[in-house]
Amino acid sequence: MTKPSTPPAAPHLPHEDFPPIAAEAIRLITTYLRDIESRPVLGPVHPGDLLNDLPRHPPSTGAADTPSRDLWSALYADLENLILPRMTHWQHPAFFGFFPANASYPAILGEILAAGLATPAFLWVTNPAATELEIRTVDWLAHALDLPPEWSISSGVGGGVIHTTASEATLTALVTARHRARARAMARPGWNPASWHPTLYTSSQAHSSVIKAAMVAGLAHDPDDRTHIRLIEVNDALALDPVALTSAITADLEAARTPIFIAATVGTTSSGAIDPLPEIARIARVHAPDAWVHIDASHHGVAAICPEFRPILTGLEECDSLCVNPHKWLLTNFDCDVFYVRDRRPLINAMSITPAYLRNAASDSGQVIDYRDWQIPLGRRFRALKLWCVFRHYGVEGLRCHIRTGVHLAQIIEQRIHDDPDFELVAPRSLNLVCFRLAPRPGESSPSADARNKRLAEAANASGKLYITPTILPGPPRFVLRIAIGGPATEERHIHDAWQTIRDLAHHAEG
Amino acid sequence: MTKPSTPPAAPHLPHEDFPPIAAEAIRLITTYLRDIESRPVLGPVHPGDLLNDLPRHPPSTGAADTPSRDLWSALYADLENLILPRMTHWQHPAFFGFFPANASYPAILGEILAAGLATPAFLWVTNPAATELEIRTVDWLAHALDLPPEWSISSGVGGGVIHTTASEATLTALVTARHRARARAMARPGWNPASWHPTLYTSSQAHSSVIKAAMVAGLAHDPDDRTHIRLIEVNDALALDPVALTSAITADLEAARTPIFIAATVGTTSSGAIDPLPEIARIARVHAPDAWVHIDASHHGVAAICPEFRPILTGLEECDSLCVNPHKWLLTNFDCDVFYVRDRRPLINAMSITPAYLRNAASDSGQVIDYRDWQIPLGRRFRALKLWCVFRHYGVEGLRCHIRTGVHLAQIIEQRIHDDPDFELVAPRSLNLVCFRLAPRPGESSPSADARNKRLAEAANASGKLYITPTILPGPPRFVLRIAIGGPATEERHIHDAWQTIRDLAHHAEG
Repeated sequence: MTKPSTPPAAPHLPHEDFPPIAAEAIRLITTYLRDIESRPVLGPVHPGDLLNDLPRHPPSTGAADTPSRDLWSALYADLENLILPRMTHWQHPAFFGFFPANASYPAILGEILAAGLATPAFLWVTNPAATELEIRTVDWLAHALDLPPEWSISSGVGGGVIHTTASEATLTALVTARHRARARAMARPGWNPASWHPTLYTSSQAHSSVIKAAMVAGLAHDPDDRTHIRLIEVNDALALDPVALTSAITADLEAARTPIFIAATVGTTSSGAIDPLPEIARIARVHAPDAWVHIDASHHGVAAICPEFRPILTGLEECDSLCVNPHKWLLTNFDCDVFYVRDRRPLINAMSITPAYLRNAASDSGQVIDYRDWQIPLGRRFRALKLWCVFRHYGVEGLRCHIRTGVHLAQIIEQRIHDDPDFELVAPRSLNLVCFRLAPRPGESSPSADARNKRLAEAANASGKLYITPTILPGPPRFVLRIAIGGPATEERHIHDAWQTIRDLAHHAEG
Repeated sequence: MTKPSTPPAAPHLPHEDFPPIAAEAIRLITTYLRDIESRPVLGPVHPGDLLNDLPRHPPSTGAADTPSRDLWSALYADLENLILPRMTHWQHPAFFGFFPANASYPAILGEILAAGLATPAFLWVTNPAATELEIRTVDWLAHALDLPPEWSISSGVGGGVIHTTASEATLTALVTARHRARARAMARPGWNPASWHPTLYTSSQAHSSVIKAAMVAGLAHDPDDRTHIRLIEVNDALALDPVALTSAITADLEAARTPIFIAATVGTTSSGAIDPLPEIARIARVHAPDAWVHIDASHHGVAAICPEFRPILTGLEECDSLCVNPHKWLLTNFDCDVFYVRDRRPLINAMSITPAYLRNAASDSGQVIDYRDWQIPLGRRFRALKLWCVFRHYGVEGLRCHIRTGVHLAQIIEQRIHDDPDFELVAPRSLNLVCFRLAPRPGESSPSADARNKRLAEAANASGKLYITPTILPGPPRFVLRIAIGGPATEERHIHDAWQTIRDLAHHAEG
C-alpha cells in the first residue's frame, strides 16, 4: 500500500464562530415566540408555495466559499421570509386545534443541551448518564402522577421509558401483549399456531393509532379489517361501554378466539371521553386474564399530577401499561411520550434481540437498563434532559398551575357557550377540551346543521385569528367544533377574543 | 354555572430571561465540544452512579421560589458535575465504536430552531412549511446520492421522508411489502388467507433491526423463530450469497410460500459488507416479483454522495426502497434517517388511516403530501430544518470532503495494521470501517486467540483513550476488533494515537 493523499477538509464551523451564530438563532426564536400573536395562526398558504421558493438542487458549496456569518444571516432571512409565513403556528395562544403541543423555554434549553451532547443511549453502556437520567425523570413523573410503586424502575418491577409518540407506545404495548399471550398459549397442551386467533378491543372513539398499530403488527390488512379488531360501542358520554366489551369478549371466547389486548382511552381525541378503567380491568381479570390492558392517556393523562384530577386514572393499578405525553400538555417539547408498564419483564421479553455487536459486560450482568429493549427503534435521542429541565424549572407545583390554568380557561369558554342560545355544548367538557356547535334551528335537518357548522369552522380557521379542529361525534353523527386549550401562552383574553370571533363569524355566516 | 376562580399562573420563564440563560447553554456545549479530548471517551462508571446522585422525588417548586438565573446555574452545574462524567462521549475524536453519530454546529442550529418553532407536521395543513421543506431537502439528498428521478417527490412517483431510525424504515418497508403482496394475492383466484405463508430474506450479517421488524410485524415470535424468516448465508466478503438466496426462494415457492420481502444491506454493521444489489434485484424480478426489495444503507449509504463511492448503490434502480442515515455519517444530528421509495403509492396504501379529526380540505384535494402516511407514528418533529442547515452550510462539496476524510483516515489505520506483523486485517476495509485482530500465533487455538483479542478490546475501552466495538465475524467465528471512523473532530493524529494505544496495550497484555 502507498500512503493515500489527504483530501481537503470539510468546512466545519469553528468553535469560536458558533456562539454568535447561535445567539442569532436564540434571538430569532425568542422574537418568534414573543411576537407570535401578530401572526395569523395559519395564513393563506397554497400547496407548493414554499417548494416554489426553494432551489430544486442542493447548494454545491457553502461555508467553503461564503463567510459563515453571511451564510447564516442569509439562512435566517430565508427562515423568516420563506418558512415562517407558511407555518401553522402551534405555539400561537389562539391555536386550539388537535391538542396543545406545548413548548417551553426550559424544554427548549433541554433540547439545546441534548443536541450539543449528541449521544445515543440505546444501551446503558452507550451512555450511562442518559439512561439513568431517564430512569430518574420518568420515575419522578410516575411519582407526580401518583402511580403505584411497582410502576417505577427504582421501586418495582415495572417502570417507564420515553417514546417518540403514543403511536409507538400503543404498538409496543400491542406487540408485548401478543408475545405474552402467545407464549402462554404455546405452553398449554394442544397448542396449534394455525388455529390461534388473537383479538383486540378498543372503543369506537379510540385514536386511529390503535388500528394503525394493528396494521403494522399484522393484525389488520387495512383500517376496515375486523378479523382481529373489535371496535366497542360507546355510551352517551362517548366512553367505552363495559357491557358491550363483555359481550364482544364473550363472543370471541365462545368462538375459541383469544383476547390479547384492550386499549382503553383516558381522554379520547374527539371529545376527551374517559373510558371506565375499573370496569375494564375487572372484565379483563374475569373473562380475559391473558389480555394486556393498555391505557392511552396521551393528551389528558398528565392532568393526573393534580390531586383533583387524579381520579381520571382510577383503576390503573390493575391495568398493564399507560402512556402520557408531556409533549402535549406538560410543557415538554415533542417528542416526549412516556410509556409505563406495571411489569417490565414481558416488555423486554417481547422486544429484546442481542447480536454480538450489542453485547457488553454491563448488559450481561443484568444490573442495568438497556432502553433499546423497551422500544421499537434501536437508536434514541437524549430526551430525558428536557424532561429534567422542565421538572427542575417548574417543580411539580408549577406544572400543576399550568394544568389548572388550561382547565380554568376551558371552563370559561364552556360557560360562554352554555350561556349563548345560538350554540350548544355537544359533549361534557373534559378538562381542557370543549366540543360545541351552532345549535340546530327548530326543524332543521341534520345535514343542514352540519353544513352550517362546517362553514363556521372553515371561516374560523381562514380568519387566521384562531385555529380549531372540527370532528364528527356519533349518536347520531354530528359535525362539531372542538376547542383544545393548554398552550402556555394562552390567557383569558385570548379565550374571550376567540369566542367573539366565532360569534361574529356565526352571525356573518347566518346573515 | 358560576365564574371559576383564576388559579395561580405557572412560573414560565419570561421571554427576556431566555437569551442569557440560553447563552450559558450555548457556552456549555461549545466548551464541551471544544475540550472533549480532555475527557476519557468513557470513564469508569458503575451502574447506579448517577441514580444515586439524583433526588428520588421531583422538586416540588422551582422558579416560583428561586430566581431563574440561580436555578439554571445550579442545573448547569449538576450537568457538568453529575451527568457529563458519566457519559459515553460519542463526539470524542477517539470514539470509534458502533458507528459515527455525527453532530455538527449547523445541525445543532437546526435543532435549536426546530425546538423554538415547535410544530408537529404530521399533515400538510399542520405545517405546510415543514412538509415542503422536508420534501425539498430529501429531494436534495436524493440528487446528491444520484438516485433515479422517480425516487423524488418533485420529479417522480416515489420520494423520501425523514424517519427516526433505520429500524423504523425497515419496519415500514416490511409492512408495505406485506400489504402489497397480500393485496395482490387477495386479487387472485383461490385466495385463502389461512394458507398464505409470507417469507422474508436477509443475510446472516444483516442488522438485528430486520428480525426485530419481523417480531413487531408478527412474522417472528422471537429472534430465533424461522417460520417466516430466512437468514441467507454470506460469501467470503461477508456479503449475501445470491446463489443461496435463489435456493431459499425456490424452496419456499415449491412449498407454496410467498416471498414478500428481501432486505439487502449496503454496509453491514459488523464489517461493512455490501450485498450485491444487481443480483438481488434480478433474483427478485425473476423468481419473486411480488417481493419488495429494501436496501438498508443506514451507515454507509451516504458515502454515495461522492461519485467514486456511488457504485455501492449500483443496482438500486431496480429495488423498491432505501434508507440512509445522515445522523450517522453526514453531519446531521440524530434523529435523521431518510427513507426513500421508488413508488410512494404502495407505502401510502399500507400506512394510511383517516379518522374525522384528521380530515381536511388540503388532504382531500390530493395535492399535498401528508407525511403521517409515510411512517408509523402520527406525530413528528420538524427534522427537515437541520438537514436544510447542513446542506446550506456545507454544500454537497463540503459533505463530500467529510466522507473522503473518514475514508482517508480508515485507509491510514488499515495500512498500519497491514504493516504490523502482530495484527491482521480480518475483512476488507469498507470505506470508514476496519475489522482486525491480534494475529493468531502459530498453532494457537481459536478460543485462545479470541480471548487475547477480547482482553485487548476491554483494555482499550477501559483506557478511556479510545472506544471500539468488538464483534464476532463468521466463517469460522472469530472475535474481532472493529474501528468505525467518521466523526467530524477526528484527525490524523487521533488515528496515530489510537493505534499507538492499541499496540502498547497489546504488548502489555502479551507481556
